[in-house]
Amino acid sequence: MKWLVRVDTRSGKISRTEATSEEMRWGGRMFIAKVLSREVPPICDPLGRNNKLIFAVGLLGDTPITTSGKLSVGAKSPLTHGVKEANTGGEAGKLLARCGIKALIFEDAPDKPMPRVLKLTATGAELIDAPELARKLVSETFSLLRKQYGPRAGLLCIGPAGEMTMAGAGVSVTDANDVQVRYAARGGLGAVMGSKGVKAIVVDDSGAEPATCMDPAAMKDAAREFAQVLLADPKTDNRHTFGTPAILALANELGLLPTRNFSSGSFEGAEALCGETVAKVIAERGGEGRSGVRCLRGCIIQCSNIFPNPSGKKSVASIQYENIALLGSNCGIGDLDDIAELNHLCNEVGVDTIEAGAALGVAMEGGVIPFGDAEGAKDLLRQIGQGTYLGRVLGNGSVMTGKILGVRRVPAVKGQAIPGYDPRALKGNGVTYVTSAMGADHTAGNGFETVRTIPPTGREGHIKSSLRLQIRAAILDSLGVCLFVRPAFIKKPEFFSRFFAARYGWKVSVDDVIRMGFDVLKTEQEFNRKAGVSAEFFDVPEFMRTEPLPPKNALFDIPLDEMQSLWTQEIPENVF
Amino acid sequence: MKWLVRVDTRSGKISRTEATSEEMRWGGRMFIAKVLSREVPPICDPLGRNNKLIFAVGLLGDTPITTSGKLSVGAKSPLTHGVKEANTGGEAGKLLARCGIKALIFEDAPDKPMPRVLKLTATGAELIDAPELARKLVSETFSLLRKQYGPRAGLLCIGPAGEMTMAGAGVSVTDANDVQVRYAARGGLGAVMGSKGVKAIVVDDSGAEPATCMDPAAMKDAAREFAQVLLADPKTDNRHTFGTPAILALANELGLLPTRNFSSGSFEGAEALCGETVAKVIAERGGEGRSGVRCLRGCIIQCSNIFPNPSGKKSVASIQYENIALLGSNCGIGDLDDIAELNHLCNEVGVDTIEAGAALGVAMEGGVIPFGDAEGAKDLLRQIGQGTYLGRVLGNGSVMTGKILGVRRVPAVKGQAIPGYDPRALKGNGVTYVTSAMGADHTAGNGFETVRTIPPTGREGHIKSSLRLQIRAAILDSLGVCLFVRPAFIKKPEFFSRFFAARYGWKVSVDDVIRMGFDVLKTEQEFNRKAGVSAEFFDVPEFMRTEPLPPKNALFDIPLDEMQSLWTQEIPENVF
Repeated sequence: MKWLVRVDTRSGKISRTEATSEEMRWGGRMFIAKVLSREVPPICDPLGRNNKLIFAVGLLGDTPITTSGKLSVGAKSPLTHGVKEANTGGEAGKLLARCGIKALIFEDAPDKPMPRVLKLTATGAELIDAPELARKLVSETFSLLRKQYGPRAGLLCIGPAGEMTMAGAGVSVTDANDVQVRYAARGGLGAVMGSKGVKAIVVDDSGAEPATCMDPAAMKDAAREFAQVLLADPKTDNRHTFGTPAILALANELGLLPTRNFSSGSFEGAEALCGETVAKVIAERGGEGRSGVRCLRGCIIQCSNIFPNPSGKKSVASIQYENIALLGSNCGIGDLDDIAELNHLCNEVGVDTIEAGAALGVAMEGGVIPFGDAEGAKDLLRQIGQGTYLGRVLGNGSVMTGKILGVRRVPAVKGQAIPGYDPRALKGNGVTYVTSAMGADHTAGNGFETVRTIPPTGREGHIKSSLRLQIRAAILDSLGVCLFVRPAFIKKPEFFSRFFAARYGWKVSVDDVIRMGFDVLKTEQEFNRKAGVSAEFFDVPEFMRTEPLPPKNALFDIPLDEMQSLWTQEIPENVF
Repeated sequence: MKWLVRVDTRSGKISRTEATSEEMRWGGRMFIAKVLSREVPPICDPLGRNNKLIFAVGLLGDTPITTSGKLSVGAKSPLTHGVKEANTGGEAGKLLARCGIKALIFEDAPDKPMPRVLKLTATGAELIDAPELARKLVSETFSLLRKQYGPRAGLLCIGPAGEMTMAGAGVSVTDANDVQVRYAARGGLGAVMGSKGVKAIVVDDSGAEPATCMDPAAMKDAAREFAQVLLADPKTDNRHTFGTPAILALANELGLLPTRNFSSGSFEGAEALCGETVAKVIAERGGEGRSGVRCLRGCIIQCSNIFPNPSGKKSVASIQYENIALLGSNCGIGDLDDIAELNHLCNEVGVDTIEAGAALGVAMEGGVIPFGDAEGAKDLLRQIGQGTYLGRVLGNGSVMTGKILGVRRVPAVKGQAIPGYDPRALKGNGVTYVTSAMGADHTAGNGFETVRTIPPTGREGHIKSSLRLQIRAAILDSLGVCLFVRPAFIKKPEFFSRFFAARYGWKVSVDDVIRMGFDVLKTEQEFNRKAGVSAEFFDVPEFMRTEPLPPKNALFDIPLDEMQSLWTQEIPENVF
């Protein structure tokens, strides 16, 4: 895993170079932060010729470690106008690693982007015109690609939203069995891909050499032990059984569940949407429905599911907490089948469910359709794919929707929609949304895991905690492992050193790894500073400082300058 | 002229306080810069509760000096997100001055803005619900207000675009005879007015004391002499005869006339649109048509016109260079009657013609209608007033239109459309667009007046020249006089001292005045720095650095950091 493949999307020229020794030390999110900083002018047009779209495998992407192989996608974001990394499960990351490809970098842009497919193998790369894929939905695209490129290929693509460069568009990936669609959803990276005239990427590892570790036996031992530690953690079992919706009941109880465009933190229909109900419905309906599904080969957590419709046919895979929160309670929609269909429609047109759900909530507040109108919401999501003017507005996200409809209450920070944790009732996440270079992104440092130790509506402890969580996330995102393996690293941080030694022969201490995570964050902050999107300019939405959130009637009251002080702090103790 | 009237648009409470001695020294644009800096959080939502909308009379607003009485309107702009001042002729400024009102400040905002009228008199102020004005066009609104408030009242209002808080909305004003509609057009101030729930302002000076000067005789002498100097300048005569369209032929010859979404700097139909043609058509058609019309009582330049349709009925008053450039050549439309109607439609729905024309050009490039489709363009402008989704997109300006339609070539700087001077062929204006706190705004420092002394496509001399022009503009905008009186001040800068001495009894040197202008600019820059919209983050559009502009095939090639150096320079010599 040493190749960097660069595709000039204007001339069509493709080059393949070996990573330098410095670049070899970068992976996933870190690779993106470093290359954007080195090569992309921070004030460039995110959809213009100077932005670059990067796919980077994590540092441990070609190992047998469970969940390794998550793929980081990054660029300057058309939504936040800052650095953006979104990572995803699915097969493509692992296959890129198997082809020896560390990163794929799309450069420049054609004047008139037309759909093309980039085909990657262990030895070559080809950019192929694919007019037949124009404006195709994601499932149609994958189905056509599967026919053409065979069962072995890893597939990534954008939907019509990405082709139309809508700032809410994501990049989708298939899993091993074409059952799930996974997404590098946030920040509009699908729009950047669309601006480059790339509809899909096909990765075929036929004939690739098997990946090698410096010390395969040590890697095997460490990976096995890591899995055991992880399996012993009760969180793993909970995620396996109930998936990410496991947290919904608690989110509702804590009064932080987005409801009707963030006008309440608790939803009267929460019980019908919680993890227990999801699991029960799946079990009762049977058919294609299943809990405990993998998004990545070799994952032992298996938090995904296949959510069936009443006849047992797959409605969407996988239904998750954020989707239920944003497309469900946030839209006043309390029926899981409706939410599953809305989720599926987002996956089909190719938009981030969080951004789309928030945009729908804003549109409902703006009177386009009433709260709770599931059929109306489905129609609006279809309009995104059709590219109607309203559809284009919604597909460009919650902030744009608010501007066009004249709605002032827009739940977004730095241009990006707030995920399923209202910062008024979980202040740590407000700190993360404001201070992270990623904008409103729970995966950048999710305070939900601290609700039992740091009072979520209190004012104390959130800044240090957010910084700690942000460093953790930056590390795991750079290794290319799922955030859900965190418990194993917390229990035994020495796994970092063992993994690096076994994979690369590097001597790396836990402190080195923590410093690496901090360096990733600082690099991202510096890019954003030069891009003009520092934390000092973007607070939580004004209404969250003046409008108490029922039922806890919490306000967000941490001053902006106090939050900014996060970036003047030293690395806290006990990151791992 | 010493009263500050503050209207709390949430509670409806109105207060009236006397200006402090410090505030007495602020007028027009300077008043806005100072009060925004003092009272408005730079990162606030421009359409939210923390922004303030300010109407400020210039320091010489209550004098007999020709063109005095221009009214400055300002706020944090929803288009640029920085400080914005747009000033306008029309009767309202003079009438406010006559009522002794130095400035009017709208504060806070209602949750659900409904149309209201603020009625101002010499002694009182009243906020009146006016549901009958909801979504009324500008002419309908003025007509209803005129009936209700009588022939003497000065009227300001917003159109439906402002009510729907579209970021391209302006604030319109009547002239003395209800013939012309003038606009504080740029930067979306109409949207800010809409967000405050204020549809119109009525100023009735019945019973007001006549304005007094410290030394009326000296003022009379100075004002008379000033008018004579101005009348002796050949530019004045040219403006009187041909209006602002006088410059079109030269703009076309220099290759800087926006044509088909800034893809050319010269238009094959320019002759049919130039000042000579405008004057000829008006003279030939007769009827209500007239050249040499005043927008402000007492103006001796009289650059306005009433443009008649073929039957001699008023089509629009006044047709001007920017409107012809942006709604005409920039849209590939070469018929003056079409342009007049487009101009009128902008005035009716209440949007800035420059922003709307640029948005139409982008929409044409995006394939919504073809270039040259005048009927299609009229329909699109009507849609702004109707609030269709496409209309809302267009009404929110060129940048928003580009985002929604996926068009990369968007002629805007800092979110605001570039006026009728392509910076590739007039580099001084590129410098102004980038460095001015106002964004792409020719009135902030128009290099067109230097085309004979500084080669417009050359790289030299533009930075110092732009700074000089920006200081001049800031001074005149703070005095409340038209930029077209500049020649008289250039010829005899001592008029500044004479005016201040006669009006206020102040001893003010020309250098003091120049320092005042520089201070206004620095104050605005500082607001923008805190708002995150400094020049360092906003270059000219990328395509202007890579796509040569025919017929001169000029590129914009002044580096951004060189332009930024403008704000590290000392005050240049010969500002006046």
